[in-house]
Amino acid sequence: MITFTDEHELFRSTVRGFVETDINPHVDEWETAGTFPARELFTKMGALGLLGLEYDEVVGGGGADHLYTLILFEELGRSESMGIPMAIGVQTDMATPALAAFGSAELKQQYLVPAITGEAVAAIAVTEPDAGSDVAALTTRAVRDGDDWIISGAKLYITNGTQADWLCALVRTSDEGGSRGVSQIVIPTDVAGFSVARKLDKLGMRGSDTAELVFDEVRVPVANTIGEIGRGFPQQMQQFQNERLVASYQAVGAMEHALERTRDYLHQRQAFGAPLSANQYPQFTLAELTAEMEMVRSLNYRAAAAMIAGEDVTRLATIAKLTSARSLRRVADWCLQFHGGIGFMEETWTARFFRDARLWSIGGGADEVMLRQLARMDGYAPR
Amino acid sequence: MITFTDEHELFRSTVRGFVETDINPHVDEWETAGTFPARELFTKMGALGLLGLEYDEVVGGGGADHLYTLILFEELGRSESMGIPMAIGVQTDMATPALAAFGSAELKQQYLVPAITGEAVAAIAVTEPDAGSDVAALTTRAVRDGDDWIISGAKLYITNGTQADWLCALVRTSDEGGSRGVSQIVIPTDVAGFSVARKLDKLGMRGSDTAELVFDEVRVPVANTIGEIGRGFPQQMQQFQNERLVASYQAVGAMEHALERTRDYLHQRQAFGAPLSANQYPQFTLAELTAEMEMVRSLNYRAAAAMIAGEDVTRLATIAKLTSARSLRRVADWCLQFHGGIGFMEETWTARFFRDARLWSIGGGADEVMLRQLARMDGYAPR
Amino acid sequence: MITFTDEHELFRSTVRGFVETDINPHVDEWETAGTFPARELFTKMGALGLLGLEYDEVVGGGGADHLYTLILFEELGRSESMGIPMAIGVQTDMATPALAAFGSAELKQQYLVPAITGEAVAAIAVTEPDAGSDVAALTTRAVRDGDDWIISGAKLYITNGTQADWLCALVRTSDEGGSRGVSQIVIPTDVAGFSVARKLDKLGMRGSDTAELVFDEVRVPVANTIGEIGRGFPQQMQQFQNERLVASYQAVGAMEHALERTRDYLHQRQAFGAPLSANQYPQFTLAELTAEMEMVRSLNYRAAAAMIAGEDVTRLATIAKLTSARSLRRVADWCLQFHGGIGFMEETWTARFFRDARLWSIGGGADEVMLRQLARMDGYAPR
Amino acid sequence: MITFTDEHELFRSTVRGFVETDINPHVDEWETAGTFPARELFTKMGALGLLGLEYDEVVGGGGADHLYTLILFEELGRSESMGIPMAIGVQTDMATPALAAFGSAELKQQYLVPAITGEAVAAIAVTEPDAGSDVAALTTRAVRDGDDWIISGAKLYITNGTQADWLCALVRTSDEGGSRGVSQIVIPTDVAGFSVARKLDKLGMRGSDTAELVFDEVRVPVANTIGEIGRGFPQQMQQFQNERLVASYQAVGAMEHALERTRDYLHQRQAFGAPLSANQYPQFTLAELTAEMEMVRSLNYRAAAAMIAGEDVTRLATIAKLTSARSLRRVADWCLQFHGGIGFMEETWTARFFRDARLWSIGGGADEVMLRQLARMDGYAPR
Repeated sequence: MITFTDEHELFRSTVRGFVETDINPHVDEWETAGTFPARELFTKMGALGLLGLEYDEVVGGGGADHLYTLILFEELGRSESMGIPMAIGVQTDMATPALAAFGSAELKQQYLVPAITGEAVAAIAVTEPDAGSDVAALTTRAVRDGDDWIISGAKLYITNGTQADWLCALVRTSDEGGSRGVSQIVIPTDVAGFSVARKLDKLGMRGSDTAELVFDEVRVPVANTIGEIGRGFPQQMQQFQNERLVASYQAVGAMEHALERTRDYLHQRQAFGAPLSANQYPQFTLAELTAEMEMVRSLNYRAAAAMIAGEDVTRLATIAKLTSARSLRRVADWCLQFHGGIGFMEETWTARFFRDARLWSIGGGADEVMLRQLARMDGYAPR
Repeated sequence: MITFTDEHELFRSTVRGFVETDINPHVDEWETAGTFPARELFTKMGALGLLGLEYDEVVGGGGADHLYTLILFEELGRSESMGIPMAIGVQTDMATPALAAFGSAELKQQYLVPAITGEAVAAIAVTEPDAGSDVAALTTRAVRDGDDWIISGAKLYITNGTQADWLCALVRTSDEGGSRGVSQIVIPTDVAGFSVARKLDKLGMRGSDTAELVFDEVRVPVANTIGEIGRGFPQQMQQFQNERLVASYQAVGAMEHALERTRDYLHQRQAFGAPLSANQYPQFTLAELTAEMEMVRSLNYRAAAAMIAGEDVTRLATIAKLTSARSLRRVADWCLQFHGGIGFMEETWTARFFRDARLWSIGGGADEVMLRQLARMDGYAPR
Repeated sequence: MITFTDEHELFRSTVRGFVETDINPHVDEWETAGTFPARELFTKMGALGLLGLEYDEVVGGGGADHLYTLILFEELGRSESMGIPMAIGVQTDMATPALAAFGSAELKQQYLVPAITGEAVAAIAVTEPDAGSDVAALTTRAVRDGDDWIISGAKLYITNGTQADWLCALVRTSDEGGSRGVSQIVIPTDVAGFSVARKLDKLGMRGSDTAELVFDEVRVPVANTIGEIGRGFPQQMQQFQNERLVASYQAVGAMEHALERTRDYLHQRQAFGAPLSANQYPQFTLAELTAEMEMVRSLNYRAAAAMIAGEDVTRLATIAKLTSARSLRRVADWCLQFHGGIGFMEETWTARFFRDARLWSIGGGADEVMLRQLARMDGYAPR
Repeated sequence: MITFTDEHELFRSTVRGFVETDINPHVDEWETAGTFPARELFTKMGALGLLGLEYDEVVGGGGADHLYTLILFEELGRSESMGIPMAIGVQTDMATPALAAFGSAELKQQYLVPAITGEAVAAIAVTEPDAGSDVAALTTRAVRDGDDWIISGAKLYITNGTQADWLCALVRTSDEGGSRGVSQIVIPTDVAGFSVARKLDKLGMRGSDTAELVFDEVRVPVANTIGEIGRGFPQQMQQFQNERLVASYQAVGAMEHALERTRDYLHQRQAFGAPLSANQYPQFTLAELTAEMEMVRSLNYRAAAAMIAGEDVTRLATIAKLTSARSLRRVADWCLQFHGGIGFMEETWTARFFRDARLWSIGGGADEVMLRQLARMDGYAPR
C-alpha cells in the first residue's frame, strides 16, 4: 500500500489548520451569499503551495507526489461547506490538468502560473444546456478566422463561473461528428461577447457559485488551444480522471468527519435514561457506514498508488467516483437521521451536509454515466 | 377492498382543483417567506368543508367516511410544497382528533368549531427540547391552582407554531413517573406568559412555519383539559394514529405525481440520439418505485378499511408511517437523480421535493420509533 | 377491504390442519425422493374440495369466492417444503384456469373434472429450452392433419412433469410470427411420441418434480384446443395472473410462519447471558421484515378484492409477483442468518426455506420480466 | 500499494493450474460424497509448498511474503466448490497460525511440520453447541492431572472434522470466568475418548466435511498447550485475523470468476432477438457488482500491505470479512438470477455457488459479530 511519511503527516496538519482557520469560520456567510471570495481564498492557498501540488516547479508547482493531493482533499472534506473544496478542486484538478499536460509553454505561463498562485480563478466549461453527459452532442462552436477562434454557444453548471478569470472550454472546432472535432480552448472571461447569463440556485454546494455562461462571437487566439486541435475529447477524458479521484478523496474526509461528529452526538444525547449510543441499531449502522468508508479509502489508496506508478487509472477512478458518491450519501443520510429533529434544522451541520452530498451522484458524471463506462470497459455490453 | 363512489371521485376533483388554484400558485412565495397565511388558506378550506371531514355535524364537521380523508391527503400530496399539507394535517388530524373524541362539549365549541371553519389555527405541542420520542421524559409542567393550571416549560418543532391560535399540548400534571401523570390541555396562545421563542430554519417543509414555544407560568382553566387528567398519554397515542395515516396517504399522492412528472421528463429529454426513457435502467427503476408506491397505497387502503370498520389500526398505521417514508424518500431521490444536473437546481421541483421528503422518516415519530413500537407489538423484544 | 367470514376462518383451519397432517409429516421423504405422490395427495385434496375452489359446480368445483383461494395458498405457504404448494398451484391455478374459462364442455368434462377430483395430475407446458420469457420464440409446433394436431418439440422446467396425466401446452399452430399463431392445447401424456426426457435436479423446491418433456409427432385431436386457435397467447397471459397471485399469497403465509419461528428461536437461544432477542438489531430487522410482509399482504388483499369485483388484475398481479418474491427472499435470508451456524444446516428448516424461496424471483416470470411488463404498462418505455 | 512481481505472477499461474487439474475435475464427486480426500489433496499441495507459504523454513515453510497467501486464496476462489478452499484455509490459516507463532519447538515439530507437508490434516475446534460467538461461554474443560490434561466436552461445526489428525482446540482450563481461563491445546484424534459424533449435512460447502466432535476424558500432555496456559483467547483472536483475510481473498477470486462466466453467458444467450447482454439492466448490475468486487480487492490489498508492514490488521480484517461476505453473496445471487431458469438447476454452477456463498456471512464469525466488534473498536458503543 501507500506509505505516509512524516512530511505527509505534517502537510495534513497544515491543511487541517487551514480548513479550521481560513474556511470554516466563513462558510455560513458564504453559504448565505451563494458564493465565496475565490481570488482571496485562492491567493492564501497559493501562498501555501496548495494549488499546484503536483505541477512542475517551472510553472510554480510543488513537484510533489500524488499523496499530497490525496491528503489535501481528504482534509478539505472536513470543511463545513462542501462547495469550497469543490471550487478548489475545479481550480487544481479539473480546469488545469489538461493545460499542464498538453498546453504550450506560453499558454501555461499565461494561464496556469496565475492559477497556481491563486491570482487567477479557473473554471471548466464542458456541459451544455442540451448536452449533459453526451459530449458528442456539444454545439458550442469555434470557427476559425485567421489566427483566432470565434466562439458562440453556451455552457451550463459552471463552478466558479461568476468569478472565473479563464475557462478550460470544450468546444466544437470541426464538422466531424461525435467526439471527434472537439477541442480544448482556454477562454479568458474579460473578452467581448462573454457574459454570465445567470447564477444558479442550487440544492446544495451553495457556498460555491455556479453559472450559465454565454459566448456570443467571442474571439480568442488559436494559440489558446490546449494540445492538438481535434484532440479535446481524449484530453478531457483524461482530465476527468483527476476530477473523479479528488471527489472520492474528499468524500472520505467528509465521511470520517461526519461519523465522528455523529458518534459524539449519540454519546451525549440521552433518551429513555441512557445515551442514544447505548442502542445497538445505531451502533451497528455506524459500523456498517464505517466499513463503507474504509472500502472507499482503500480504493482511493489503490488508485493513488496506481497513479504514482504511472498506470492508467481510468477504471479505478470511475469506480471510485461511483462508489464514493453512494457511500457519502448514505453517511449523510444516516447522520441526519440519527440526529432526529435537530438534524433536519439548518442550524445543524447535518442539513447542509445532506444537501451538499447529493451532488456527488450527479456532478462530474452522474452515477449512470459511470455505470455505462464501467460496463463498456469490462465488456458487459455487446462487443 | 375499499370502494370509491362517484361522490368520492367528485370530491377528489374538488381537492385537486383546490390544490391547483389555491395552493400551487402561491407556494414559491410561501417557501421564500418560510411560512404561509394559515388563517386565510384554512378559511377557504373550511368553507369547502375540508377541515372537519369526519367530525360530527354538531361541531361543523362533515360526518363523512374515512375515505374522504384518504382522498384529501392523497390529493394534497400533489402540492408543490409538502409543508402546506403538513400544516393542514396538523389542523385536521394531529391537533384536533383527541379534542373531538374526548373533549367536553364546551371545549369543542370553543376550540374545535373554529378549527373546522378555519378561523382558528391549531397546533400540536408534544415534543420538547430534551425529550424527542421519549414521552416519559416530558418536563413541561402544569401545576394546579384552584380551577386553573399554571404551565411552565417549552415545546420544540411545533408546526403552525408561529401563528397558532391554540395548542393541543401534552404536559406533566403529576409527579407520577413515566407516561402516567401527563395530560392533554388546550392552551390558547393569546395568554400572558406564552411566547414564540424562535422560528426554526428547516432543511425542507419551508412553506410551513415551525417554532419553539415557551410557557412561563401560563394560566389556563382546568376545564381546558381534554378528557381525563392523567390520561394524556393513551389519548395522544391514539391521536398519533391519524397523523401516521395521513402522512402515508399524502406520500402516495406525492409519489404518484413525482413519478408522472419524471416519466414525462424522460420521454422529452434527449441524449445519445434518443429520449432518456429509451434506457432500460430508468425504465426498470421507475417500475420498481411504482411497485413500492402501490404497496404503500395497498397498505393505506387496508388501514382505511380497518378504520372504517372500527378496528384498532395502531399496527397498520405504524407500518404505514415507516414504509411510506422509506418509499417517498426513494422516489424523491431517484426523481432528482434522473433529472441530472437540472434536478439539483432549486428551479426544478425535484430539489424541494427531495428536501421536503426527508422529514418523513423523522417527523411524527422517527423510523426508529416505529421499529421499536412494531418490535414490541409483534413480540420480537423479550417479554 | 376484504372481509373474512366465519366460514372463511373455518376453511383456514381446515387447510392448516391438512398441511400439518397430510403434508408436513411426509416432506422430508419427498424432498429426498425429489418428487411426491401427486395423485395420492391430490385425491385427498379433491375429496376436501381444495382443488377447484372457484370453479363451477358443474365441473365439480366449489363455486366459492376468491378469498378461499387466498386462504388456501396462505396456509399452504406454511408447508415445510414450498415445492408441494407449487405443485398444487400448478394444478389449481396454472394448468386449469384457461381450460375452465375457454374450454369446450367436452374438454372440461374429460380433463378439468378429474383435475378437480385429483384423479388426474395436470401440468402447464409453456417454457422451452431456447425460449424463456420470450413467448414469441416458441418453436414447439402443431401441424394440422385432418382433425388432429401433430405436435413436435420440447418443453422445459415443467412442474409435475414426470407424473402429469395431461398438459396445458402452448404451441405454435401457424407461421404467423411473434405471439400470434400460438394456441393452447391439452395434451394427454399417455400418447405415442410423448416422453419425459429427464427429471431436473434443482437448487430448491426439491419435493416437487420438474421435467424436460419431448414431443415426437404426438397426435391429439384438434378438439383438444382450448378456446380459439391462435388465441393461445392472450389466454395464457390471463392464466399467468392467477399464477402470480397464488405465488404472492403463498409467500405471505410462508413469511409469517418463518418470522414466528425465528422470533421463537431468538427468545430461546442464549448468548452473552441473555436471549438473542434482547438485541435491538434482530428486533428491528424482524420488525422491518414484518412491515414488508404486511405490505405484500395488503397488496394481495387489494388484488383479491379487485378480482372479486371483476376488475383486470394484471398490473396488481405483476406487482405482487415482483414484490412478494423480493420480500420472501429477504425473510428467508435473515431467518437463516439469525439462526447462525445451525441455520446453515439442512437439519434446520431455514436451509430448505432459503433454497426454495430463491425460485420466487425466477419461476412464473423472472423479476426482470415483471419489471419489463410493468414499465410498459405504466408508460415508462417510449411509446 | 502492493506490487506483484513476476515471481508472484508465476505463482498465480501455478495455483490456477492446480485448481484446474487437481481440484475442479473432482469436485462433483466430492460434493456428492459430502467430503473430499484431504490427506491426498493436501499431500499434493504440500509437495508444491502451498500449505506453509509464510511459515519458517525451519518447519518446512516457504518463508514467503504475505502476497503469496493472497494470491493462493484468490486463485483457490476459482474452485468449482468453495468447500475445498475452505478446508485448505483451515489447514493453512485457521488451525496452524497460533501453533506456528506460539507453539514450542517440539509441538511444532510434531504437529506443524506434517500439516505443512500435508501428511497430517488439521482442524480448528472453537465453537460449541451452546456457545457460538460467545467464547466466554465455552464449557469444554481440561482438568489437569499431573503432566496431562483430561478433556471433556463437545465441539460443533468443525471443518475437516471427520478426517483431522489433530485439532487446535480452545478449551477451559480454569474456573476464571469469561475469556480468561481458556487455553489452546493440540488434541490428536487417535486418542481414547475422542469420537466424531456425526457428520453434518450443510446447505453448501458440501465438498468439505463438517462434524460434531465429542471428548470423553481425552488425555493429552500439558505440553500440547500452545503458548501460555490461560492465554488461549487472545491467541485465538489473533488467529481469527488470518481466517478473516483469507476468506476475503477467496471471495474476490470467486466473484471475479463468477462475473466473467455470467458475462459470457449473457453474450451468448439470446432473447427477443438479441443477446441478453444487450440489455442495460444486466449491464449496469454487473458493473455495480464489479465495483463492489474491486472495493473488496482494494481493501484486501491494503490489509495485506499492512500485514506485510507488521501492523495490526484486526480492524481491516474485520471489515474485510464483513464486506466481502456481503459482496460475494450479492454476486452469487445476481449471477444465478441472470441465468434464469437454468441458473436454478444444480447442473449449473450458479446453484452451488449460491449455496456455498451463503456461509460467508455466518462462518468465521457472523456479520453481527463483525459489526459488534467494529462498533466497539471505533467507539460507537458507550465507553
